[in-house]
Amino acid sequence: MADSPQPAANIGVVGLAVMGSNLARNLASREGNTVAVYNRSYAKTETLITEHPEAGFVAASTIDEFAASLQKPRTAIIMVQAGRGTDAVIDQLVEAFEPGDIIVDGGNALFTDTIRREKAVRETGINFVGAGISGGEEGALNGPSIMPGGSAEAWETLGPILKSIAAVAEGEPCVTHVGTDGAGHFVKMIHNGIEYADMQLIAEAYDLIRRGTGKSPAEIAEIFAEWNRGELESYLIEITAEVLRQVDAETGAPLVDVILDQAGAKGTGAWTVQSALDLGVPVSGIAEAVFARSLSSKPAQRAAASDLPGPSASWTVDDADAFVEDVRKALYASKIVAYSQGFDEIVAGAEQYGWDIKKGEIAKIWRGGCIIRAQFLNRITEAYDENPGLVALLTAPYFRDALTETQEAWRRIVVASAQSGIPAPAFSSSLSYYDGLRADRLPAALVQGQRDFFGAHTYKRIDKDGTFHTLWSGDRTEISAVDAH
Amino acid sequence: MADSPQPAANIGVVGLAVMGSNLARNLASREGNTVAVYNRSYAKTETLITEHPEAGFVAASTIDEFAASLQKPRTAIIMVQAGRGTDAVIDQLVEAFEPGDIIVDGGNALFTDTIRREKAVRETGINFVGAGISGGEEGALNGPSIMPGGSAEAWETLGPILKSIAAVAEGEPCVTHVGTDGAGHFVKMIHNGIEYADMQLIAEAYDLIRRGTGKSPAEIAEIFAEWNRGELESYLIEITAEVLRQVDAETGAPLVDVILDQAGAKGTGAWTVQSALDLGVPVSGIAEAVFARSLSSKPAQRAAASDLPGPSASWTVDDADAFVEDVRKALYASKIVAYSQGFDEIVAGAEQYGWDIKKGEIAKIWRGGCIIRAQFLNRITEAYDENPGLVALLTAPYFRDALTETQEAWRRIVVASAQSGIPAPAFSSSLSYYDGLRADRLPAALVQGQRDFFGAHTYKRIDKDGTFHTLWSGDRTEISAVDAH
Repeated sequence: MADSPQPAANIGVVGLAVMGSNLARNLASREGNTVAVYNRSYAKTETLITEHPEAGFVAASTIDEFAASLQKPRTAIIMVQAGRGTDAVIDQLVEAFEPGDIIVDGGNALFTDTIRREKAVRETGINFVGAGISGGEEGALNGPSIMPGGSAEAWETLGPILKSIAAVAEGEPCVTHVGTDGAGHFVKMIHNGIEYADMQLIAEAYDLIRRGTGKSPAEIAEIFAEWNRGELESYLIEITAEVLRQVDAETGAPLVDVILDQAGAKGTGAWTVQSALDLGVPVSGIAEAVFARSLSSKPAQRAAASDLPGPSASWTVDDADAFVEDVRKALYASKIVAYSQGFDEIVAGAEQYGWDIKKGEIAKIWRGGCIIRAQFLNRITEAYDENPGLVALLTAPYFRDALTETQEAWRRIVVASAQSGIPAPAFSSSLSYYDGLRADRLPAALVQGQRDFFGAHTYKRIDKDGTFHTLWSGDRTEISAVDAH
Repeated sequence: MADSPQPAANIGVVGLAVMGSNLARNLASREGNTVAVYNRSYAKTETLITEHPEAGFVAASTIDEFAASLQKPRTAIIMVQAGRGTDAVIDQLVEAFEPGDIIVDGGNALFTDTIRREKAVRETGINFVGAGISGGEEGALNGPSIMPGGSAEAWETLGPILKSIAAVAEGEPCVTHVGTDGAGHFVKMIHNGIEYADMQLIAEAYDLIRRGTGKSPAEIAEIFAEWNRGELESYLIEITAEVLRQVDAETGAPLVDVILDQAGAKGTGAWTVQSALDLGVPVSGIAEAVFARSLSSKPAQRAAASDLPGPSASWTVDDADAFVEDVRKALYASKIVAYSQGFDEIVAGAEQYGWDIKKGEIAKIWRGGCIIRAQFLNRITEAYDENPGLVALLTAPYFRDALTETQEAWRRIVVASAQSGIPAPAFSSSLSYYDGLRADRLPAALVQGQRDFFGAHTYKRIDKDGTFHTLWSGDRTEISAVDAH
C-alpha cells in the first residue's frame, strides 16, 4: 500500500474486456482525466495500451501498483463479469485502498449482492458504489446511461467523473445518484426488465403484420422506420428497422428468416420478475416477455406440439393499412403498461429497501445511452414532476389520453391474435392487466371465498372492518376472525 | 438423551397448532400407532391431551422427554410455521436424537432450505425428510396428500406410517417417496402453483359467466355443480359451487358479493414462478394467477385506474347456454396448460437437482387429500405411464384430443374477454402459450437479431451449425462467433 511519489491517475478501471476497455477509453477521452488500468492477466492491459496510445493510460501490473497510481480519494471502477469474480476483485481493492477511497462495481450485479457488498465494504471506511451501466459496448465507449447507488459522499467525488462520460440527452448527462447501496443496480435491473418487454412487444407487432398482411421483412422495416418518426420513436424501433432490412449475403434471404428462432437471455429479465414477486408487484408484461424467450428455446417441446390444431376458420386482414395502424396502437398501449409495471416495481423497491428514488430523474437518465432510450421517457418525467405521488404511471393524464386513443385498436389486435392463432402473449397480457386494474369488481372475491373454505384463510367484507371466517364444515355461520383459530 | 426403560411411542409430532394437532390425532387413530406429542409451550399440549383422551397421546414437556418416549429409530414430524422456527426445532431434535433416527419437516418449507437442512442433518447420521403435506386442516385430520423427500433408508421406516394416515384414492394411499433431499417440498410447491392457476381460471370463468349472462351466483353455483359431474370434476370446482351458493346472513346478498375482492397469498405460488425462472421454464399461466392476486390487492392503483376507458361498442352474449359451454371448454383447455407447465417445472427441477421423480406417481398422489384433487389426474398418470419421456404433457394423445375439442371455444372466450373488457389473464395467457408452443416459427428470431445488434450477443442460423455475429456498426457482413470478441 506504498504510495508512489506522484500518483498520476484520477480514476482507474479494473477488468479490461470489451466493456471495461471501452469505458476506460471513454474516461481517457474526457478532459482532465488520467486513467489507470489493471487486468488480472497483463496481456489484455498491454493490448489496450498498445492499441490506444492516445489514451495515455497508466498501466499497472499489480493491484498495489494500480492503487499507488491513483490520486486520493482513489476511485476505481470494476468492470468484470458479475458473480464471484466481483467479490475477489473487491477483496483485493479493499486490501490496497484506504478509508475514503471509492470502489465502483460497474457490472450487472444482482442488487441484493450490491447491498451485501456495500455493507461489508463500508465497515472498512471505503465507499462502495454499485453502478448500473447500460448501452452495451458502444455506450461504454461513447456515452452510456449510468445508474449509480452508494453514499452521497461517494457521489460527490464520482458524480463529476460519471457526468463527463455519460450519454447526453437534450443537454443533460444521463446519470444521477439513484439512491443508497443497491439502488443503482436495482434500477438497472428494472431497465432491463422493461427492455425485455419492449423487445417482445416489437417482435409480436412484427409477427402479426408479417403473417397478417404478407408483407416482407423489408416492407415491415419501412413501417418501423415510419413509426420511429412518431410517438414510438426509440432506439429499439430504430434498430428493428435495421435488422429487418438486413439481407443474408449467403442465401439472399432476409436475415431474420435465417436466424434460428430461439431467444437467449442473460438473467436480468428473470431477476426483475423474481424481485417483483418478492415485492408483490404484478409485472405480467415483463414476465410474459421472459417466458416467451424460454418457450422459444425449447425445441423438443415445440416439435412435439407443432401439429396441435389451430383455428379452423380462415382469418384474413381486409385492410392492411388499418391493421398496421391497429398494431401500432396496440404496441404503444402495451408499452405504456410495461413501463407502468416497471415503475411500480421501482416504487415498491424504494419503499422496501429505504431508497429515495426520484422516478422522474430515472426516466430522464434513460433518454440517452441505454437500450430503451426513447422520446417517450420525457412524458414519464413530466408525469412524475406533475405528481410525485402518482400511484400508477398509466393513470397520469398523458398516458390516460394515450390509452383512451389506443385501447379499441389494442382490443382488435388481441382479438386478431386469438382468432388467427398468432401468439401475442405480451399484447394480450397487457390488455388483461389494463382491464383488471380498471375493473370495479374482481373475481378475487371468489378466490378469497375458496381460500376460506379449504384453508380457513379468512376474508374481509366490503361493508365493515374486521376479518371473517365462515364455518364451512359447521353450520355455515360467519364468525369474526378473532374466533377463528 | 437418557432412554426411558420402555419407550411407548412409535411416532412423534412437534408443534401442536391446528395442523400439528390434527396430524397427531390422525396418526393416533391408526391401528398400531402410539403418538408422542411436544409443543414449546406446554399449555397447547395439555389442551390437546385433555380434549382427546381417546388418542392415548404420550405427552412430553421437554425435548429430551419427547426423545426418550420414542422407540428407535425415533421418528418425529415437525409441524411448525416454516422459517426460522423450523431451524430451531431441528437443532433441538438433532441434539436429542441419535444416528439412524428420522426428523420429518411437514411444514411448507422452501425446497432449497430443505436441501440445505438435509445436508446438515445427514452429517450427524440422522435422517432428515422434508415432506409436503397438502389438504389443509381437514386433510391433516382425515387424510392428506403427502410428498416426502429424503433418503430411501428413511422412507423404509416412514413409508408405512405415512401410508396409514394419507388420503386414499381408488384404493391407493396418496403418498410416495418423491425423491431425495428437497424433492418433496419442491413437488408440494408445484402443487400449490398449479392450485393458484386452477383457482384463477375458475374465478375468470365465474366472472365471464356472471357479467356475460347476468346469471346470479346461485345460478352459477348450479353450473359449477353440473361441471363437477363431467371432465372438470374436482375439489375446487365442487367448493366453488358451495361458495357461490352461500348467502350472507347479515345482508341477504350472495356472500361472494360481500367479500372484499382483494386476494391474499402465502408465497408458495410466487416461489413456483421464481423457481421456474431459475429453471428457464415458462409457467405463464401460474404467473398470471399470482399476479392477478397481487393486482387485486392494490386498492390505491385500482381506484386511480377505475375510470380508464373500456370498450365503447356494446358487447352481449346472444346464446347464454352456448357461451357457458364455451367457458367450460376454455377452462378445461387452460387447466391442461397449467398442469402441463407445472409438470414441465417438475421435469426441469428433477434434472437440475438430480431427483428421480416419477411424474405418473405424483399425479396419482394428488388424486386425493390435496386441494387440486381431481379425476383429471388419472389422465396425467396414464400419459406418463404410456410415455415416461413425454416432453410436454399437453402433447399426450388424451390431452391433444381434449385441446382439439376445446380450442375453438377457448379462442371465442379470449375474444369475448378482449371485446367485453372483462379481464381473463389466465385464459388469455394460456392460449398464447398454446399458440406459441405450436408455432412453426416464432419472432424470437427478430429478438435474436436485436440482441446481436445492440449487444453482440450472437445468433445461430437455421441452415448450419455455429454461432454468428453481424458487424452491424461495421460493413454489416456476418462473421462466425469465434471471431466476435
